[in-house]
Amino acid sequence: MGQYTHILLAADFNPESEKVVHRAKALAANFHARLSIVHVLEPISIAYGGEFPVDLGDLHKELEKQAKQQLGALGEKLNVAPEHQYLEVGITEKEILRVAKANGVDLIVMGSHGRHGLALLLGSTANAVLHHADIDVLAVRVGKKS
Amino acid sequence: MGQYTHILLAADFNPESEKVVHRAKALAANFHARLSIVHVLEPISIAYGGEFPVDLGDLHKELEKQAKQQLGALGEKLNVAPEHQYLEVGITEKEILRVAKANGVDLIVMGSHGRHGLALLLGSTANAVLHHADIDVLAVRVGKKS
Repeated sequence: MGQYTHILLAADFNPESEKVVHRAKALAANFHARLSIVHVLEPISIAYGGEFPVDLGDLHKELEKQAKQQLGALGEKLNVAPEHQYLEVGITEKEILRVAKANGVDLIVMGSHGRHGLALLLGSTANAVLHHADIDVLAVRVGKKS
Repeated sequence: MGQYTHILLAADFNPESEKVVHRAKALAANFHARLSIVHVLEPISIAYGGEFPVDLGDLHKELEKQAKQQLGALGEKLNVAPEHQYLEVGITEKEILRVAKANGVDLIVMGSHGRHGLALLLGSTANAVLHHADIDVLAVRVGKKS
């Protein structure tokens, strides 16, 4: 009882988030649980409120290519097979939850940043996931000494 | 890296929260971490907005006595020595954080309830702890099938 069987790491590729990766790895190892990874790209129109004046298709393709590479490298490092690496486009918290529910995840591991600047946004994401999840959420504190 | 060494279970003695206890136990066992327990009694004047018309000293004493018994029983069940069982009076999230910081806790495990009625309050507590903690927080989903 109390064991986790399928852990989903919500990865944001922020250098500060190395700690989140280590936590997810230790949890999966200690619980002998399956580990999957999800990374969500928000459409640029969402990130910039739809006010960007140029065609962003190429930029999005480039970002997607970079994200795919980073996800692949992280998957290799963590021994997560490509079919358990999810690269999604959409609203971060919605996509994390969708992937978690579709794959029988029982624990989501994600970073929780501080409360100012860009950090606020990421803290809000952890918060939104927490409030909508029927699934346990581990918020790993990043960007502060601890 | 990524290992937890001191886990604090925030216990509310709600029958629904059995799952939170099991998660904390499994985590402490799998990480070979120390386990402590905190339970917070909110002063009745806080819980009722200070509008209660009678002297509540006796009632508070009775609640404190009951809480002490429940905490002791849980501590015995989880092999947590009395000196690592903390019964505090105050604002729940503040007391949880205070005990966590004073004792070098690196992970707080607590229940996260649904979003209606009393559940909202408890969900808010998990949320408040999460937002103010420099420490990782595991929100264990209770009160829903999962």
